[in-house]
Amino acid sequence: MEKRSDALQRLRRTHEEVVLAALRADGPMSRARLTEDTGLSRTTLFAIIAELMERGVVIETGAEDGRPRQRGRPATRVSLNPDAGLLIGIDLGRRRIRVAIANVARQIVATAVDDSAADVDEREQAELAIGLIHKMCQDEGIGLRALEAIGVGLVGVMDAPDRRWRAVERLAAAFDVRVEADNNARLAALGEQTWGAAHTTEDVVYVRWSVGVGGGFISGGRLLRGAHGASGELGHVSVDPAGPRCHCGGRGCLEERIGIPALLEAIAARGVRLTGTDDLLEAAQARTPAVTKVVVEAARTLGHVLAGTVAQLDPERVVVGGDLATLGGLVLDPIRSAIGGLALPGTRRTLDVVPADLGPAASAMGAIALVLKEHDPLPPRTAGS
Amino acid sequence: MEKRSDALQRLRRTHEEVVLAALRADGPMSRARLTEDTGLSRTTLFAIIAELMERGVVIETGAEDGRPRQRGRPATRVSLNPDAGLLIGIDLGRRRIRVAIANVARQIVATAVDDSAADVDEREQAELAIGLIHKMCQDEGIGLRALEAIGVGLVGVMDAPDRRWRAVERLAAAFDVRVEADNNARLAALGEQTWGAAHTTEDVVYVRWSVGVGGGFISGGRLLRGAHGASGELGHVSVDPAGPRCHCGGRGCLEERIGIPALLEAIAARGVRLTGTDDLLEAAQARTPAVTKVVVEAARTLGHVLAGTVAQLDPERVVVGGDLATLGGLVLDPIRSAIGGLALPGTRRTLDVVPADLGPAASAMGAIALVLKEHDPLPPRTAGS
Repeated sequence: MEKRSDALQRLRRTHEEVVLAALRADGPMSRARLTEDTGLSRTTLFAIIAELMERGVVIETGAEDGRPRQRGRPATRVSLNPDAGLLIGIDLGRRRIRVAIANVARQIVATAVDDSAADVDEREQAELAIGLIHKMCQDEGIGLRALEAIGVGLVGVMDAPDRRWRAVERLAAAFDVRVEADNNARLAALGEQTWGAAHTTEDVVYVRWSVGVGGGFISGGRLLRGAHGASGELGHVSVDPAGPRCHCGGRGCLEERIGIPALLEAIAARGVRLTGTDDLLEAAQARTPAVTKVVVEAARTLGHVLAGTVAQLDPERVVVGGDLATLGGLVLDPIRSAIGGLALPGTRRTLDVVPADLGPAASAMGAIALVLKEHDPLPPRTAGS
Repeated sequence: MEKRSDALQRLRRTHEEVVLAALRADGPMSRARLTEDTGLSRTTLFAIIAELMERGVVIETGAEDGRPRQRGRPATRVSLNPDAGLLIGIDLGRRRIRVAIANVARQIVATAVDDSAADVDEREQAELAIGLIHKMCQDEGIGLRALEAIGVGLVGVMDAPDRRWRAVERLAAAFDVRVEADNNARLAALGEQTWGAAHTTEDVVYVRWSVGVGGGFISGGRLLRGAHGASGELGHVSVDPAGPRCHCGGRGCLEERIGIPALLEAIAARGVRLTGTDDLLEAAQARTPAVTKVVVEAARTLGHVLAGTVAQLDPERVVVGGDLATLGGLVLDPIRSAIGGLALPGTRRTLDVVPADLGPAASAMGAIALVLKEHDPLPPRTAGS
């Protein structure tokens, strides 16, 4: 019986989608025409509309054609609420908080960053995010009344409620809307697939190469989560079973080998002292030999891991994001050649290896995509409606 | 506009599912009660029923309560057709053809195998399968009138129509029903998830270790196909970038290292001559030292590859199938220790490594699961209806 109630709930959501799709495609219309167009019974249609109105997603507008009906009051029309459907994406990173806001047409209308979040606890992170959102809304004249949902990107594995979820709870309480959370590297994958380098692509392997190494996989258009919320953890593939112990419990993890701290160490061993990420990127762009040698070797190692991923998941596109991806061909070419050499059984396949498009806001945008997809599986329309 | 027609088509399928779920749960009922129960309009419900009747999925049975209605003829009731919903799964292997038949309750009612299929072409394979099906139906008194769909398992990557598809076309023509095909190792994964070792599990890594090495991944309850139908190809993960060239274009592929031919060769190099798979399994069961050494080493190599897969896909269960899996702990323990040692970031996870349950009919059963899932995403009911 539970199975049946699942099916009924899915039916209800599909009804909603069809009503919203009709309004998006053809603009405001009467309930009578919506009944005709959707094949729903009058009772069902009226109930769906009532609920959508209560949630502020649709509103009643003027009468059809402005003409009075033959009997009784004129039939009002129903339309999408132009002030509704505001979605907020928040990326609670280790050092920075980023926020992106999208309107009902799924266009990003504002982004902002707060750099003061280094080493604050989850509660403070949430307060900083709340403050940032209020400031953005004030600056841009955005009314939060239209807020529908918030997506949040968090660091790490999503396997159990822990301290990080305090921030999620605080945000839900502050704005009184649905809040969904996921790992921020996975959300970056979703962001790139919704707006960026993997747009229109259904099968994507995304890797983020920065201080850590993370990623996200999209297969058949769906973000893979895993049984414990750890899908996409490319950084913890072992590249050396006899290597040093990693904090994850494994040995010789990719992240320990090619994350920025490891690169800086390997470069220091070659006598070149660099102080951080920006320094590393500049030295690589200046083609400092010790630096390019270490970076290229690391890209090759990443490429070998990705070759295995490609052989197993058969994506259409590999998207490389994170700080290191900004080095372009220097890192992409060794990855391409490792994948091309090892992982393409058969000859009819096409596989692109491309840099990410969205820059550091990818996770915040992906957090919007998260609540967008959860809520409404229909693809975005670019034309207004 | 196409998007909207997609949504409408999905709506229609969901309507069907809800109607079928209601009939499954509560048995025969009148159209009036179905209208009430499902929230569909009379028009929509009658159209759905008409189509389901045309397809023979539902039939009209006696009047409700046997009482005449107040006006006009008595309201007949609608019920699932007990003779409908026959599904056939066919595994067109390199040497053998296997067939499984399931009834509308999703129970396997017959299985059979034809061993004469070694080295015949696709057309002959199809003819052998057709003959085998007719013989099974005669032996078991199964009427093909009730046949709804056929699933077919094929060897290799599913990336483009080629010779193998001739068999699929021949089968579709012979039985005049919908025929779906997929890689047979992926179908074995689906079979194990529907009836076998991964039952009730939503996130599964399945590997089949025999002459070749193949597999299939299920994530969030969905079989991953990949952009070119090659998802799950564990056999073509490179375990040695400097290794010998594989027919797939890569180097040092896992399959070339641990497939049965490679094992036989490695064992021969240790002075023990074995003639084939059965011989190999017997010698391993007898714990012939040269044999166990090679097999355990190969299981460790497979374990390292699977550790990477687990780190990336985060499954709940790893299922090991194929001839080698019948050796039990001898191969499962090295795999377990390789995965346990390398691939479990965090501590709250559970991960089983278990042998496959369904034996050599797994792919044929998975072929049934393929058409079952494609056609009707509702989960099976065990009680009759």
